[in-house]
Amino acid sequence: MPNPTPLGFTFAGVAAGIKKTGASDLALIVSDRPCGAAATFTRNAFPAAPVLYDRALVAENAAGLRAVAINAGCANACTGAAGLTDAAEMAHLAEAALGLPPRSAAVMSTGVIGPRLPMDKIAAGIQQAADALSPDGWDAAAHAIMTTDTRPKTAFREIGGVRIFGMCKGAGMIHPNMATMLATIVTDAAVEPALLAELLRQAVDVSFNCISVDGDMSTNDTVLLLANGAANSKLEAGSSETSAFASALTSLCTDLAQQIVRDGEGATKFITVRVAGAASDADARIAAKAVANSPLVKTAFYGGDANWGRILAAVGYSGALVEPAKADLWIAAGVGAGLAPAQGDGKRSPLQLVRAGQPLPYSEEAASAIFAGPEITVTVKLGPGDGQATVWTCDLSHDYVSINGHYRT
Amino acid sequence: MPNPTPLGFTFAGVAAGIKKTGASDLALIVSDRPCGAAATFTRNAFPAAPVLYDRALVAENAAGLRAVAINAGCANACTGAAGLTDAAEMAHLAEAALGLPPRSAAVMSTGVIGPRLPMDKIAAGIQQAADALSPDGWDAAAHAIMTTDTRPKTAFREIGGVRIFGMCKGAGMIHPNMATMLATIVTDAAVEPALLAELLRQAVDVSFNCISVDGDMSTNDTVLLLANGAANSKLEAGSSETSAFASALTSLCTDLAQQIVRDGEGATKFITVRVAGAASDADARIAAKAVANSPLVKTAFYGGDANWGRILAAVGYSGALVEPAKADLWIAAGVGAGLAPAQGDGKRSPLQLVRAGQPLPYSEEAASAIFAGPEITVTVKLGPGDGQATVWTCDLSHDYVSINGHYRT
Repeated sequence: MPNPTPLGFTFAGVAAGIKKTGASDLALIVSDRPCGAAATFTRNAFPAAPVLYDRALVAENAAGLRAVAINAGCANACTGAAGLTDAAEMAHLAEAALGLPPRSAAVMSTGVIGPRLPMDKIAAGIQQAADALSPDGWDAAAHAIMTTDTRPKTAFREIGGVRIFGMCKGAGMIHPNMATMLATIVTDAAVEPALLAELLRQAVDVSFNCISVDGDMSTNDTVLLLANGAANSKLEAGSSETSAFASALTSLCTDLAQQIVRDGEGATKFITVRVAGAASDADARIAAKAVANSPLVKTAFYGGDANWGRILAAVGYSGALVEPAKADLWIAAGVGAGLAPAQGDGKRSPLQLVRAGQPLPYSEEAASAIFAGPEITVTVKLGPGDGQATVWTCDLSHDYVSINGHYRT
Repeated sequence: MPNPTPLGFTFAGVAAGIKKTGASDLALIVSDRPCGAAATFTRNAFPAAPVLYDRALVAENAAGLRAVAINAGCANACTGAAGLTDAAEMAHLAEAALGLPPRSAAVMSTGVIGPRLPMDKIAAGIQQAADALSPDGWDAAAHAIMTTDTRPKTAFREIGGVRIFGMCKGAGMIHPNMATMLATIVTDAAVEPALLAELLRQAVDVSFNCISVDGDMSTNDTVLLLANGAANSKLEAGSSETSAFASALTSLCTDLAQQIVRDGEGATKFITVRVAGAASDADARIAAKAVANSPLVKTAFYGGDANWGRILAAVGYSGALVEPAKADLWIAAGVGAGLAPAQGDGKRSPLQLVRAGQPLPYSEEAASAIFAGPEITVTVKLGPGDGQATVWTCDLSHDYVSINGHYRT
């Protein structure tokens, strides 16, 4: 099997001793030539030091990045001026170990909030990782950025002779970590920074921005996209190649985002919330997020209850425009199958629970068959227009409380 | 002990068979003369039939209400036109049983969403309650409106020769109920409807609107205030008597609201979130509510973790204006003691965890002593101004998930 990663990139993941468990905790991703770079960052008002560092770096050198160094076990967040110095030093250490020019390495951190980075371990780990770089190191790199994740999260796409690889972590949050969502995506297409930023913004908007594990947004959330052009295929704005690349990038981001939800802390079910008939797409998203963030909806799914009253109530307080007399609600098994016509044995067909604002009688057997599966789709029609949105979330379980309460049993 | 309830009001609570458990489920509160009336209602886009009925009633007859009939066990929500007919019929039944003029009885319902009211049981229950009315019936009435509440919630105040009594229910939500927050407050002061509405709005704004069990807002939430003037004390706008009455009313509403939080589904701790130093009071409230609604913060309190990173992160994504370099954070035992000077044995003194955006070292022993108690106060200072707000919430426990997940163990 040929190496599926984009040309010109090497990867490594090593155990630098930052995590107390001894698990791997430092990753490097390096390009053999300068990359176009784009990134999206948390909108949290307390951005961590690496976020502040990368934001300035990408603005300054969006055509010349060469590497990213990522550590788990310490978030370098709420660390003030000292944390900014540490983030810059971590980048310098990577540039020095790799023989790269200044201001060519980005940094990301995830883990405990408050403590400073253990710079001696970071330095040794970066050197160790630099010595281990390989095109096959992607799996080791994906492992090294895990925190409460129970499995690494990676995705590949190949389209029109270029390759895209992405890896991410994120699972909810666990004491004393903020479970940051970090993603690094690399491609061997050649893309100008301005176009790259637009492609990333569009892809993130319908993928990473459409998931909810618990509604919280961390201090460190970052998605970085590097395009090194090693495939000798230049993407121009408006071309059909670029359109195909955009679709593949969105598909890859959606894949990664859904992996995060499926690995959500304590998650037992993957839930797709689709809203249609809204006054606008933005309104649809507001309603879908309210449903996806509602603890009552999420516990009902955990318990396997067809508790449609909670779903409509969440839509009702979301602020989205609703015409109650036009509201419809379906549940269905699987991902995004809410409005599909009935198929199969009938037991797993979409089940309409509310029509024109009125509850419908339904078969408990059919509802139970839907809830018995690991994937459920909820579709709500609001009435006033044609706006649509899809959001993915998971249920809220006893294990979520145990994990996040750090509960002493 | 003299009867503490306002003059001229009688109360009853009976078992009408609406709840499957056989517990009492129908309450009547009746005045011997017309009342000034004011009410606040849910802003949910799917208001239940009794909300629609009462909203029109109070607008039409704010000087002439005589009674309120309340049932538990069925919310009469998402019942469409038939539900509106049922709500009107329930009011007519109360008026007929009590010999009152048309359009003088309000109605409230809480319980299962979807099914129609069992009108035969409602009719028999109203008659039974009408026969049981007594000034001493307040406790029976408070019991009859309970759903997932584990105890009735009542409060009394006496100020300047007038009395105020309030009762409420609300505990979070439980399948298949929306745990509506319902409150009825009665006083023997004489207050014009316009002034009464303003007094109620002010009191609700800093009490019932400042609690969060799980961030959800039901289809039925209602607070009704009736003033019958039986004490022969007329309150005029701007008078010192009115100011004293307003304070007592706010105190009573705060008392009731805090009782709801303390009885929150699965709650093991009562948490006060105070935000100071905000750009405005509204901004402070946005930040306080984000903290109070964060599942991560609430599970951390359940587990007894001083997880200040989650608190700052919630503030950070709330949308409130923050100056991270000015942010301070304290925890303390008790209610609202966050900024009080250190007292007592030192172990339960307020503990500052963050100063000027930087984490402080703290004693695990001191933090554990604070978390060991049933009441905890968090105080966050944002930096940019003088805005303040206080919100009350409870922790998120395994029992919350069990109750709301209807989990089959």
